Amino acid sequence: MATTVRLLRAVRRLGACYQSASPAATRAIITNRYYNLSHLRELNTSTIMASGFIGSNSGLLFRQLFDGDSCTYTYLLADTATKEALLIDPVIELAQRDATLIKQLQLNLKYVVNTHVHADHITGSGMLKKLVPGCVSVLSEASGGDADLKVNPGDVIKVGAVQLEVRATPGHTAGDALLIGGCGRTDFQEGNPETLYKAVHSQILTLPDHYLLYPAHDYQGLTVTSVKEEKEYNPRLTKSLTEFVEIMNNLGLPYPDKIDVSLPANKVCGLYNLPDDLAAELQKAS
Amino acid sequence: MATTVRLLRAVRRLGACYQSASPAATRAIITNRYYNLSHLRELNTSTIMASGFIGSNSGLLFRQLFDGDSCTYTYLLADTATKEALLIDPVIELAQRDATLIKQLQLNLKYVVNTHVHADHITGSGMLKKLVPGCVSVLSEASGGDADLKVNPGDVIKVGAVQLEVRATPGHTAGDALLIGGCGRTDFQEGNPETLYKAVHSQILTLPDHYLLYPAHDYQGLTVTSVKEEKEYNPRLTKSLTEFVEIMNNLGLPYPDKIDVSLPANKVCGLYNLPDDLAAELQKAS
Repeated sequence: MATTVRLLRAVRRLGACYQSASPAATRAIITNRYYNLSHLRELNTSTIMASGFIGSNSGLLFRQLFDGDSCTYTYLLADTATKEALLIDPVIELAQRDATLIKQLQLNLKYVVNTHVHADHITGSGMLKKLVPGCVSVLSEASGGDADLKVNPGDVIKVGAVQLEVRATPGHTAGDALLIGGCGRTDFQEGNPETLYKAVHSQILTLPDHYLLYPAHDYQGLTVTSVKEEKEYNPRLTKSLTEFVEIMNNLGLPYPDKIDVSLPANKVCGLYNLPDDLAAELQKAS
Repeated sequence: MATTVRLLRAVRRLGACYQSASPAATRAIITNRYYNLSHLRELNTSTIMASGFIGSNSGLLFRQLFDGDSCTYTYLLADTATKEALLIDPVIELAQRDATLIKQLQLNLKYVVNTHVHADHITGSGMLKKLVPGCVSVLSEASGGDADLKVNPGDVIKVGAVQLEVRATPGHTAGDALLIGGCGRTDFQEGNPETLYKAVHSQILTLPDHYLLYPAHDYQGLTVTSVKEEKEYNPRLTKSLTEFVEIMNNLGLPYPDKIDVSLPANKVCGLYNLPDDLAAELQKAS
């Protein structure tokens, strides 16, 4: 079982945004398929099987979900044996879609995790807590936001044999720390390009080349990349630190769309300070 | 090696639209991860490894790509050992994205496959043939369209050890034969709900429950389903044939957006009869 746990460890960087002390914004990729090849032969075969199938003896269920409005990816992970599940970065408008899927897959939703206090959408955490009673909201201690469970770098979140390791990747404010062929914004509030550069290089690009990296957003219709690809082709992060800082300080981007409604709501799991229509929907779900 | 081939068989239904003799429109899901569990122990471990990583000895690379405009999914499949690849249902506006990815992954694009003559987008086949010289366009014989290679039900398309089996799922005209929690339209041209119902039930829902079904479109941000889920929850296809026909004949949907430009262009691999801007781009790629 120890082997299974190690093999199925799904590493997700959980982050902190808008912390007062440290230089802000950490964030958000998912590296599932942490398969250590040297141990693969020892493994119960079904643990490697078709992620997505509930009904096999044991293994990882993995579903990538998309919000076409904010281009946010939400992730559902579960242990197919215990049926315990967690949801990462749900979007409030799609909370019902996620709840239906969880019900159809007969999963027991244990955690709703936010990788940070989002600036581009309102989290579905609060709505999901109403729709799927019993689940626990998770956010980093450093975020300064409210949640049932606060985590810190090095912590491990478990659903059955699936483990998520918490890593801090501070420095960005909107987007992801690492995007496919890009990176998040650092040009307002507590963003800091130097911090971001160092975090991505030390926390993500040091992972083995074959790790798949699942982004929290993508704007080109890409769904996944790998450590190897980003190390070779990311047009910003393959630059030197000095060049990177120069690029990031001169992007000249407009102020993010939804930041002024998203931030206050996301500090409290998307439960309060909602626009009227969403507040009404939340009320209905209660 | 025989085992590897069997295990990695990626089943994709390839279809025919607008055939004169038969009742038209066949189509489009992808069932990858054809893992026969009873044989999994015999397998070279790396063949099961992280789909997506080029650099392992052997295995399936699998990338799902999205067009946010038409909600079309394009699929890139490759053998990580031989680096031979094929692309399914590319969209002309995103052909450059696909060509860049193929180049970065150092793949040798052998086939560009269209599951049928699309009604909702113009295929990227023609553009990709310019951008990635040497690849061969593939379409079903029954489609009546032009392509370098015409296939028929039962044919197998191979890239290294990855195999695609051609299955006909006629009856629909737009969308997919099977959508996640839905199905394609049957209400104009050669569409036929009875034909569609029988095709989906005989060609797709008879597959093992744990097969993952990758859709050609999704409008809710879902990326994958399984045979088991569609058999249990598809609100249309769990109905009786009579009820299904009744539903499909009374949808009252508007005429599809892009059908009048898409169909003529897609009969010839997206190479001719293009809108001016796309024609100019194609010219530039030549």
